[in-house]
Amino acid sequence: MKQSQLFTKTIKKEIKDEKSSNAQLLIRAGFIDKLSAGVYSYLPLGWRVLKKIENIIREEMNEVSGQEVLLPALHPKSSWTKTDRWKYKEMFKLKNRAQKDFSLGWTHEEIVTPLLQKFVQSYKDLPVSVYQIQDKFRDELRAKSGLLRGVEFLMKDLYSFHQSEKDLDQYYEKVKKAYFKIFQRCGILKQTYLTLASGGTFSQYSHEFQTITPYGEDQVYLCSKCKLAINKEIIKKQKYQCPKCQSKKLEEKKSIEVGNIFKLMDKFSRAFNFTFKDRNGKEKPVLMGCYGIGLGRLMGATVEVHHDEKGIIWPESMAPFQVHLLLLEKKKAIKKITEKLYQDLQKSNVEVLYDDRENVSAGEKFIDCDLIGIPYRMIISEKTLSKNCLEIKKRDKKSKKLIPLSKFLKT
Amino acid sequence: MKQSQLFTKTIKKEIKDEKSSNAQLLIRAGFIDKLSAGVYSYLPLGWRVLKKIENIIREEMNEVSGQEVLLPALHPKSSWTKTDRWKYKEMFKLKNRAQKDFSLGWTHEEIVTPLLQKFVQSYKDLPVSVYQIQDKFRDELRAKSGLLRGVEFLMKDLYSFHQSEKDLDQYYEKVKKAYFKIFQRCGILKQTYLTLASGGTFSQYSHEFQTITPYGEDQVYLCSKCKLAINKEIIKKQKYQCPKCQSKKLEEKKSIEVGNIFKLMDKFSRAFNFTFKDRNGKEKPVLMGCYGIGLGRLMGATVEVHHDEKGIIWPESMAPFQVHLLLLEKKKAIKKITEKLYQDLQKSNVEVLYDDRENVSAGEKFIDCDLIGIPYRMIISEKTLSKNCLEIKKRDKKSKKLIPLSKFLKT
Repeated sequence: MKQSQLFTKTIKKEIKDEKSSNAQLLIRAGFIDKLSAGVYSYLPLGWRVLKKIENIIREEMNEVSGQEVLLPALHPKSSWTKTDRWKYKEMFKLKNRAQKDFSLGWTHEEIVTPLLQKFVQSYKDLPVSVYQIQDKFRDELRAKSGLLRGVEFLMKDLYSFHQSEKDLDQYYEKVKKAYFKIFQRCGILKQTYLTLASGGTFSQYSHEFQTITPYGEDQVYLCSKCKLAINKEIIKKQKYQCPKCQSKKLEEKKSIEVGNIFKLMDKFSRAFNFTFKDRNGKEKPVLMGCYGIGLGRLMGATVEVHHDEKGIIWPESMAPFQVHLLLLEKKKAIKKITEKLYQDLQKSNVEVLYDDRENVSAGEKFIDCDLIGIPYRMIISEKTLSKNCLEIKKRDKKSKKLIPLSKFLKT
Repeated sequence: MKQSQLFTKTIKKEIKDEKSSNAQLLIRAGFIDKLSAGVYSYLPLGWRVLKKIENIIREEMNEVSGQEVLLPALHPKSSWTKTDRWKYKEMFKLKNRAQKDFSLGWTHEEIVTPLLQKFVQSYKDLPVSVYQIQDKFRDELRAKSGLLRGVEFLMKDLYSFHQSEKDLDQYYEKVKKAYFKIFQRCGILKQTYLTLASGGTFSQYSHEFQTITPYGEDQVYLCSKCKLAINKEIIKKQKYQCPKCQSKKLEEKKSIEVGNIFKLMDKFSRAFNFTFKDRNGKEKPVLMGCYGIGLGRLMGATVEVHHDEKGIIWPESMAPFQVHLLLLEKKKAIKKITEKLYQDLQKSNVEVLYDDRENVSAGEKFIDCDLIGIPYRMIISEKTLSKNCLEIKKRDKKSKKLIPLSKFLKT
């Protein structure tokens, strides 16, 4: 894409009402725009990152046999009374003109359970898992951390249905692996720890995935021996000991919850009387698991982990473009060959943002380039051209390299 | 995909509370599920159709230089007061816990105008157009036509910004063509007419795209000479004459509005004081156009146009799969070669739904196949195998053909 055509422009000044680095950088670089506390628009650059994240998550969900659906955001009150969760404080409630009560979905157990109940009758219909990537709403009073805590936010939620605890356990481990794969592909694996969290009434633990960063809103306790984190709630119960190895050598760290997985067991199936016939014809409650990842939050967490004082440093897998090609000189010959490089890179399926803007100084282009944070910067100058080369620099490295133009130009 | 793994099952009985063919067929075949009047879930088959439609629309919007964004559904009241549209009856309204007023977006002029205002200052920044594919909400009392009239519904909305009426006019014609391309690709071009509708305060006409079908909720008047439709509102003003050729030979037809395009001129830019500096440094209001298509409505309209008494007849471009492969015999040799055909078709990037279900009769499989409406049905039987062939039948044709297996099987 030509940068002269991109409707967003970078913002030089600090954004007044945003404290977090992710919001500062993403707004200043033109990825997102704030409409209201915790409510953001994704602009063209941000939309591209969102699609990259969406595709990574979708591929990994399909790998664990998830069937994709799209459930409504608007829920009638009747969906929420059977589980006694209509009273949930953070749920937005509204009425239609006929005075019927609705809520905006902040999760979808109450929708997906009766939906699957319509189709699952026998053990032969199990296991099954469905997921969606969809807008959620939460009436959040402290929406002050940019994309980390949204009032409206995109989430992937997967729900799995099983005939036995053993089957649920096996699937749960499979999804755990899929989650680590997602965080690896998003470039935050090194910072992300499986974290013991409260399991509710039915399981000893549920699991969060916490990404360690000084800007995190959560607090976890790391056991380096077990490579495990323990959340605040659990560590208090455990009297500040690792529940696995009993070590007291725990590091307190700030972190961001980038995912959570939970064995729901029969909590929702009992509420909806969702049973199946087992091999012996006996009716049993279906066992469930649920597995969430916030897409915006993952974007925000990645920016918190991967940035410097100049701007964002996108992992290649999530970057809006792979190459930021800068035109810095006005000479016709340079413009012509830079233009050709732009065309030829695209023909080779490389995603390029081409800074072809006129009346913008080289200095400003460098500043914007660092702020936007695309992995590879490319420049052709008179100097590099005299050696039939282009200059390439990785966003996260200081060194520049000269590469023969022939490597990229098509004849 | 193996049909034995698809969590949905077809429903034999008529759906009680649905009158329209699109809702009857889409629910019975397992494409959608109704949560509340006008509020539907897209199930795996429906989700696949939705993605096909989304991709067609996205490609055509990118062709007219649309930049994709994703705007919020939750709007603060302050966005809606400047245009005096907070009073709009069909807009859902709600409060957060801090008693701040919000609405759910049923359109996005009030969001996109101040957003673009942040970035557009000069004639050099124009023209620009942005679009999104996103959930809309409308407090609709008569949501009785399945996907044709939603309370929650997916929409593509494109907004364009111009420095002159001439430029807006040119772009408007370009989008008109893009819309016809979309309807052509979706297989409803023949039934879809450009329709004169009221232009509001600023233009003589706006344009709707109306798809003629006996099940439509709208009514239009066709002038066969001009290949033009006129909507109810306009035809009354025109005293039942074609405004173009003055002919009184007009056919009254039921129809579904599948798209609309509108020159907003300076209506919204004036409300937000959105101006640009022209070549002479003079401040002028930006001129706008808006262009909508409902994705679910397009799906519903396609089913209304393309179905018979047995079920849906999907156009290839929108079908959830291209091939429905039925395994009808229990013999091992047949199963083995059908399985190989399933694998090999997928290797050739053909999307296949493979009905591998055991304990389902051939008769039931045929009924489900016609109901789901995938374009090509394939079967290998002992008889066809003896000729080294498979049987292929198009959903919309009666005749069957024998095709050599070698055409599809990889060695």
